[in-house]
Amino acid sequence: MVPRPQIDNNSSVPLYRQLYEQLRDQIRSGVIADGDRLPATRELAGLLNLNRTTVAAAYELLETEGLIKGHVGRGSFVNLRNEPDRSWRHLLPPTLSDTPPDTSAARISFATSRPSSDLFPLDTFRQCAQTVLSGDSLARILQLGSPLGYEPLRRWLFNTLRNELVAADTDDVLITNGCQQALDLLERTFVEPGDLVFVEDPVYPGLKAVFQQAGARLHGIPISDYGLDIDELARQLRRERPKLLIVTPNFQNPTGATLPADARQEVVRLAREHGVVLVENDIYSPLRYEGEPLPVLKSLDPDVIQLGSFSKVAFPGLRVGWMLAPQPVTAHCAQAKQSSDLHSDQLSQAILYNFAAQGHLEAHRHNVIRAGAERLATTLDALARHFPALSHFTRPLGGMNLWVRLPASLDTADLLPKAVAAGVSYLPGRFFNVLRNEPNCLRLSFAGVPPHQIGEGIQILGQLFTAELGRERQTFRAPATAMV
Amino acid sequence: MVPRPQIDNNSSVPLYRQLYEQLRDQIRSGVIADGDRLPATRELAGLLNLNRTTVAAAYELLETEGLIKGHVGRGSFVNLRNEPDRSWRHLLPPTLSDTPPDTSAARISFATSRPSSDLFPLDTFRQCAQTVLSGDSLARILQLGSPLGYEPLRRWLFNTLRNELVAADTDDVLITNGCQQALDLLERTFVEPGDLVFVEDPVYPGLKAVFQQAGARLHGIPISDYGLDIDELARQLRRERPKLLIVTPNFQNPTGATLPADARQEVVRLAREHGVVLVENDIYSPLRYEGEPLPVLKSLDPDVIQLGSFSKVAFPGLRVGWMLAPQPVTAHCAQAKQSSDLHSDQLSQAILYNFAAQGHLEAHRHNVIRAGAERLATTLDALARHFPALSHFTRPLGGMNLWVRLPASLDTADLLPKAVAAGVSYLPGRFFNVLRNEPNCLRLSFAGVPPHQIGEGIQILGQLFTAELGRERQTFRAPATAMV
Repeated sequence: MVPRPQIDNNSSVPLYRQLYEQLRDQIRSGVIADGDRLPATRELAGLLNLNRTTVAAAYELLETEGLIKGHVGRGSFVNLRNEPDRSWRHLLPPTLSDTPPDTSAARISFATSRPSSDLFPLDTFRQCAQTVLSGDSLARILQLGSPLGYEPLRRWLFNTLRNELVAADTDDVLITNGCQQALDLLERTFVEPGDLVFVEDPVYPGLKAVFQQAGARLHGIPISDYGLDIDELARQLRRERPKLLIVTPNFQNPTGATLPADARQEVVRLAREHGVVLVENDIYSPLRYEGEPLPVLKSLDPDVIQLGSFSKVAFPGLRVGWMLAPQPVTAHCAQAKQSSDLHSDQLSQAILYNFAAQGHLEAHRHNVIRAGAERLATTLDALARHFPALSHFTRPLGGMNLWVRLPASLDTADLLPKAVAAGVSYLPGRFFNVLRNEPNCLRLSFAGVPPHQIGEGIQILGQLFTAELGRERQTFRAPATAMV
Repeated sequence: MVPRPQIDNNSSVPLYRQLYEQLRDQIRSGVIADGDRLPATRELAGLLNLNRTTVAAAYELLETEGLIKGHVGRGSFVNLRNEPDRSWRHLLPPTLSDTPPDTSAARISFATSRPSSDLFPLDTFRQCAQTVLSGDSLARILQLGSPLGYEPLRRWLFNTLRNELVAADTDDVLITNGCQQALDLLERTFVEPGDLVFVEDPVYPGLKAVFQQAGARLHGIPISDYGLDIDELARQLRRERPKLLIVTPNFQNPTGATLPADARQEVVRLAREHGVVLVENDIYSPLRYEGEPLPVLKSLDPDVIQLGSFSKVAFPGLRVGWMLAPQPVTAHCAQAKQSSDLHSDQLSQAILYNFAAQGHLEAHRHNVIRAGAERLATTLDALARHFPALSHFTRPLGGMNLWVRLPASLDTADLLPKAVAAGVSYLPGRFFNVLRNEPNCLRLSFAGVPPHQIGEGIQILGQLFTAELGRERQTFRAPATAMV
């Protein structure tokens, strides 16, 4: 029995549309089955107290849409088989199986490499926003802008990087929606399907996704506590010439590793020797908690393409990052930017320009560094105390992430649902692996976790992993009964 | 004679870095020529009053970078020939030749399809921004968000579109950086290199660029004053099955054409019959200046993917648009969105949500419609008065653009520099053509031009085109002297 359509005479929606909508939904949801005969227009009109032309108009729309078919003298029939196959399953590409799991149910999250919103200097932010809103440029900011970015911000970034001896006179700055879009624009500009790209292994999954979705071949160069394996890089460069080599010299995501000074020279030299475009992902370098800064790759070679962002130091919800590169590169990437989304949001660019140019970014950075150093120390302390004895973990000098290697019998992807059920999330190592296979590894993103939760969260994880090891030993020790 | 490096003892930049930088720039700019011998470290140290190890460190960096080479007993020589070829010319793809010309020098611009910033309701905008800035959600807005978009805005859009009987219950809303990014995400999701896409001809160049840069084949279906040529669409669909069919039923860019009601039914029917994904570019439909709204394609078939934006009605400098589509489509496109730039800027989403939900968007739309109707009337009046007799122009019912066909002997691309020199810009027809060739056409974007400039600008263009026709007639009439 098909539910009777509910018609509202007081609605602003025309009666025939109301009827059409309800019948359409009933057909699509299967309440009215394929092949069913609809009531005659006269019959339904009487039943619903409608004019017969109203019902006829609704039926006509259903017929136009290919949902019913009228047969002279027999009435109108649901006729879904006549619809060509528009099942989205056939039209859409297969879903990437490599999507990290949803861990949002966990109370304590080590799963995201982001700053702590507790640290956001909201009052200062409001002041800077106020300056922009009350300024003479507001109408210009709300109007269409340039693919290269908001001019005052671009100029400030370039001058700052020039003064730090990072930018060359032949460089230009292109504003992007964070570092993620800069990677995407570089993919569009330099990489064709089938091209080879060298990345660190393990590496941030969003970086893998950009190149994999574009059909590039990724080759992973192992990265350890001491940064990229330079000997392996040299070996691989002798064998194959990638289009891009992407390196994060400071506090790499996920390992937290820092590339030593001599290795930086060597990476630059190798890239130049082999004619490879070198991309320096530099988003974490402002967050150094100890030791002296080492020269960025861009300062060693003006041909390096350097990526920076406000997302890690300041506000990830405002999507503003940049690419510093030789002018031919930024000019090409600006074309790709225009095709992607015309230009970045100008209101956020203007507010961040104010925030940075007035010195608030630098002041905030010092707060973030103080908090980050404390959280890192708390994390390391808790790991030493609570994690199973044979665990190994990196000791970053800055940034937001560290990398844990559990005893080899544990699989962090298998254990994640248990951890989330216990209230704690992390990202399993496999989402970061390129060629390596480290199922017993995991990334802990500590910077966004309130200090009082860090110890608690790591204790919960430690207990879970220790219990799991105990269970495995038991399983191993209990000999199976012979099958006879 | 090489200029002596200028070393600043009071700078925070290390001395060796100062020296290295200056020598590097001199080498790269050719001031110190390839093959030249650098002074011995001892000699330069004495000259500049530096420690010899400082000079040696600078030379070492230059050598690491491959700019100089040391020869035992002979000294250090500039050695550029040793650098492998990293000329960006060889590494970058060729620049697209189809980039529209820079017309920014013109005083009166008909070149951009954008709203007039004179109409921006700045005080209302400031109020809405204030509400967001002083609200409890600010920290959440500044934190990392969802690829699908800012939840209150998504919910408001979905409910609004649901109440208008446009959104189906099975749909979802994905926030994009304007309509441009929605097109880009659809390209990434549905189109492989070599795939066929059907678009209107002429069509907005940014739409062509997305698909051409991705290696798709574009097929243009002619569009006239009366909208898309449905017979030709039907013929082409019988011959080939494209991945996407992209249609702008209301006030199309560039023609301003509106698709009649029966043709809308037919487009939807054809797309369904041939199993083609139908994309409705609906960014102009809120700007109707006369006549009754016609049903949008999405309301005729829930499988239609509809694109909307705040950029045309409100503020293009805030990059916020949306895609309304069946959930499997938005889910896939959200994956592409995450790879592109994680998510859209949340501050602008939050402000626009306030602006729209409080009714300011609708109030502003009425102002924009009033102003647009006036500007359109002024434009049509001036065209009739000043353009050459055999010109033809469309008479849009809304939107921002109209399309002019000049007498066939005129080439609008050739004439553009003269027009810009006379203070007026437009975009030549060829940038909009797909398969057609309409060198005598041009787009006039009237909505962003202040009313007092419209008559003046069109008069200048009319005089230019008329003079050009006169010159051509003269050229034609003067018989060439026989070559003997």
